[in-house]
Amino acid sequence: MPDPNRIWTAALIVIGDEILSGRTQDRNVAQIATWLNVQGIRLAEVRVVADDQPAIVEAVNILRARNDYLFTTGGIGPTHDDITVDAIAAALGVEVIVHPKARAVLESYYETRGGLTDARLRMARVPDGASLIENRMSGAPGIRHGNIFIMAGVPSITAGMLEALTGTLEGGSPLLATTIGCWVAESEVADLLGKTERAHEGCQIGSYPFFREGRTGANFVVRSTDQARLDACVSALTYALEQGGWPVHPGGI
Amino acid sequence: MPDPNRIWTAALIVIGDEILSGRTQDRNVAQIATWLNVQGIRLAEVRVVADDQPAIVEAVNILRARNDYLFTTGGIGPTHDDITVDAIAAALGVEVIVHPKARAVLESYYETRGGLTDARLRMARVPDGASLIENRMSGAPGIRHGNIFIMAGVPSITAGMLEALTGTLEGGSPLLATTIGCWVAESEVADLLGKTERAHEGCQIGSYPFFREGRTGANFVVRSTDQARLDACVSALTYALEQGGWPVHPGGI
Repeated sequence: MPDPNRIWTAALIVIGDEILSGRTQDRNVAQIATWLNVQGIRLAEVRVVADDQPAIVEAVNILRARNDYLFTTGGIGPTHDDITVDAIAAALGVEVIVHPKARAVLESYYETRGGLTDARLRMARVPDGASLIENRMSGAPGIRHGNIFIMAGVPSITAGMLEALTGTLEGGSPLLATTIGCWVAESEVADLLGKTERAHEGCQIGSYPFFREGRTGANFVVRSTDQARLDACVSALTYALEQGGWPVHPGGI
Repeated sequence: MPDPNRIWTAALIVIGDEILSGRTQDRNVAQIATWLNVQGIRLAEVRVVADDQPAIVEAVNILRARNDYLFTTGGIGPTHDDITVDAIAAALGVEVIVHPKARAVLESYYETRGGLTDARLRMARVPDGASLIENRMSGAPGIRHGNIFIMAGVPSITAGMLEALTGTLEGGSPLLATTIGCWVAESEVADLLGKTERAHEGCQIGSYPFFREGRTGANFVVRSTDQARLDACVSALTYALEQGGWPVHPGGI
């Protein structure tokens, strides 16, 4: 019988000099994390690495071994700085081959767009043994090899690939979360938060302070895979905060 | 004599369940990367880890050994989920102490804000041997211990801490970058990009495709620490693109 308390985890490797140089604001961490939560899989760790084969190989081999799933984003385009497929094949110790179905997809996509050049054919290359992930936005597909999912760097393309994967990965109970907010300095309620968390097994309380319109506030996010425990913890926290004189804003501020 | 070609590197550890859950969009990677470029230091790798001591200890010890500098963001507030200081002290094998100057800063900051409670005093705790980084936004200071810089999770507070550090870290030549853009599918110019990069030593060309208003385009970012080489590479790339029939937009699209 499957263990209902088993936690399924994923790691993500964001590949790209453009993130490390500060040129591009990453959007894939939040997008993939949110999608994984719904699949009942927890994003356990993320690494951002350069367009550098040894760096990618090291991260792939460590993270795929200690997580149920490994996602990568970036570096699967047609240009010289797109080295993800070669690096992952090297990490797995397999050859890079041209996937016949990917070639057919690209031939069809580029039929009215100037034809399939050598550069474009690069996007049909996969580590030997891989299958494809449908790309609903543009031509080049994503790639699955065992527990590794190789996705695009452009967030809207990755969104389409995630949609194609929805419901196909085994996971556990989705992580549920409820947010409440107060106009309070988190340091005033630190003890109350810690005590409430300790009293509610299977729940975590995160505290996220902010400064807005010259005032100090904090949102408190309660997370659990169990709806009844989550609700009990949120009720207890709400009661404690209001008893302390801080009106609670359901849903956060 | 210092080596003018020496590359100084930094790593960043983003600490926080709120990033891994997808609740919060990280802003510190891009902010710190951009700031490091100006200091002549390259952001070489980033890890996002949970509020979990073994995960933080592992990342700290690997990344501080192989980079000139290590930055962390997040987990230095007053609540039970703020465990960064304890985890870094454990990684370094030193005690956690209350820093007298941090205590004085907090006493003064909270004098008109309800006084220094036990929870607030948590923010004066540092790994033994640390010095402080000025916090120009709120009370609790950042922490420096050797080549480790412990910063806030809230981006505006980290911005003030970076400002306080500006010009104090040894680095090499700042990484310079010039962006040009074309309405072209990057797959059409992949060979041209690779050839131009190979012909210009000390320059890297990054290609960043996008889809906008129903059209395909790409920005090309040329990076180098040498202004003359950078200019020569940008000129050659501009010439090659325009000869190919793709008008170049200086500064990117």
